[in-house]
Amino acid sequence: MSSTPSFAAQSPTSPLAPHQITRRAVGPNDVQIEIEFCGVCHTDIHQSRNDWGATNYPVVPGHEIVGKVSALGLEVGNLQIGQRVAVGCFVDSCHVCSSCKADMEQYCLQGFTASYNSPSKDPGGFTYGGYSKRIVVDKHFVLTVPDGLDPAGAAPLLCAGITTYSPLRHWGVKAGMTVGIIGLGGLGHMGVKLSHAMGAKTVMITTSKNKASDAMKLGADNVLISTDSDAMQAMANQFDFLLNTIPVPHDYNQYMGLLKVDGTMCIVGSVGPTAELDSGPLIFGRRSVAGSLVGGIKETQEMLDFCAKHHIVSDIELIKMEDINHAYERMLKSDVKYRFVIDMNSLS
Amino acid sequence: MSSTPSFAAQSPTSPLAPHQITRRAVGPNDVQIEIEFCGVCHTDIHQSRNDWGATNYPVVPGHEIVGKVSALGLEVGNLQIGQRVAVGCFVDSCHVCSSCKADMEQYCLQGFTASYNSPSKDPGGFTYGGYSKRIVVDKHFVLTVPDGLDPAGAAPLLCAGITTYSPLRHWGVKAGMTVGIIGLGGLGHMGVKLSHAMGAKTVMITTSKNKASDAMKLGADNVLISTDSDAMQAMANQFDFLLNTIPVPHDYNQYMGLLKVDGTMCIVGSVGPTAELDSGPLIFGRRSVAGSLVGGIKETQEMLDFCAKHHIVSDIELIKMEDINHAYERMLKSDVKYRFVIDMNSLS
Repeated sequence: MSSTPSFAAQSPTSPLAPHQITRRAVGPNDVQIEIEFCGVCHTDIHQSRNDWGATNYPVVPGHEIVGKVSALGLEVGNLQIGQRVAVGCFVDSCHVCSSCKADMEQYCLQGFTASYNSPSKDPGGFTYGGYSKRIVVDKHFVLTVPDGLDPAGAAPLLCAGITTYSPLRHWGVKAGMTVGIIGLGGLGHMGVKLSHAMGAKTVMITTSKNKASDAMKLGADNVLISTDSDAMQAMANQFDFLLNTIPVPHDYNQYMGLLKVDGTMCIVGSVGPTAELDSGPLIFGRRSVAGSLVGGIKETQEMLDFCAKHHIVSDIELIKMEDINHAYERMLKSDVKYRFVIDMNSLS
Repeated sequence: MSSTPSFAAQSPTSPLAPHQITRRAVGPNDVQIEIEFCGVCHTDIHQSRNDWGATNYPVVPGHEIVGKVSALGLEVGNLQIGQRVAVGCFVDSCHVCSSCKADMEQYCLQGFTASYNSPSKDPGGFTYGGYSKRIVVDKHFVLTVPDGLDPAGAAPLLCAGITTYSPLRHWGVKAGMTVGIIGLGGLGHMGVKLSHAMGAKTVMITTSKNKASDAMKLGADNVLISTDSDAMQAMANQFDFLLNTIPVPHDYNQYMGLLKVDGTMCIVGSVGPTAELDSGPLIFGRRSVAGSLVGGIKETQEMLDFCAKHHIVSDIELIKMEDINHAYERMLKSDVKYRFVIDMNSLS
């Protein structure tokens, strides 16, 4: 075990402050990583501030982690000291349920172990995340970062990237299809880049006219303003797939008529109750509303390789650790294009 | 053109009464059918009473039609006089849109022509349905009733049967799968029979303990009482597919946790707004809520052939035409097992 400087929230009301966290010793199947960069996800704010009432303090947020291997257990054969690696939203699962056996650890029937604030046998009793100098992770949950991917821009791929990549792949997005990405934020901007790279005609669907030019720069072929009822009507029955990244409860029904017969709208932004659902557009077109959660380890590696091949990283603002509380405030005002990433060298 | 005795509602408030309806002359692609039996669908009540505000009087309800060919147009090569045939929920579509070309006339992008109360070039300006001695229908929309199917029991297959068969087939129900049929009425009892015949482990999900034995007789392997929270919890993550036949707005969320990862609940009973949808169970399991509308002509014929092979018809109460208003009252109290069918010989 070793004590590692980490940036941890001490209580629901206090801002994040430095904290010495003890990491577990490197076991035979473990990888120790010196963290270079950690992306800042909206979840981090909720967990730091105990918005969901389930935070265990001190909590060390961060599940978009990129760094270099600094120690290897005896049974870890596929990695080398100094190799650039990454860790995403979870660091353990049961390995034996039908989901785990199907490389979908994110749907582990026993529940996965999240990269932070999950019960753990490690010192402290809970996992500690990436706002830290160092992390020790089971080799199964360590991804490799391909050469050529900017490591800071790659960090948000571990959550925002895979959260959008997985449903786009699962619903077979490819050339010849028309895909709508609803909402232009951390998730939405990755959705546009990935859908475009998969060859689909990609339409940004947003309430904000002033986001149109940004969306086009990111790779959108077109922009649909969802408050323009004539424009929405003109696009009825045009979409094969909609990826809904809006992070707050909202009315789903306004979008369903955009889908072709057998089309699906997949929710990845807002977890929880939303407005009442109208079954009419579902029935009169065999349409679906679905959800999707990040992606499995195998698929996350596939996503990183895909991003390297297509030169895709997140658009980021690199910040120092000491700026995290200010960054949170800006995120709450949607004032970031499109993801904050912490340079962990700034933490001492 | 010929005048045909029909049982037609004359106004929103009057009960159904006999009416002389003029049918179109038999064109080159038309089939004239002497109607033997017509099933009574809940839709008939809504349309007769103008519950949806879109009824054109006089309206002749009925879209579960079985009869015998009495005249054929010159271009109709595949049918014979006296052959037993059937007509379902629609009698025309555009034939050229992507849905029609894919044998999914029910999702015709121009909108199909319903078997009654739809605008039509026929005399009267609207289609007239099956509460009648005779109907004239384009050959494309005429099904053949296989030998061995009881013609009265087969009538409800044209709506209740195909409405449940189509989603069960579309979502690949087969041996080795566990399927839940939610709600035991006209649709639900067909869902149980068909899912069972497709080889799936079939569970009736109902609020009514007193429906358990009936469900088992229909072919259910088990019954799950949805108000029993312990029983519901015990069946979490167990279902590959749920067919929701509940005919009124209700809370979908209580059922979503029953589904396995990647499972779908398909709505066929209640059209319109329902309770708010919780995206949580969708996201944490990549589950879907979908809808489905009857089936295309090719699939409806496949369903009739499947039912003949598996000796499946609807459980019915055969009534005389003069009993229709009483039957409506009983249906509104869910007092029917499980479908009324009118013997059209009783109409003179």
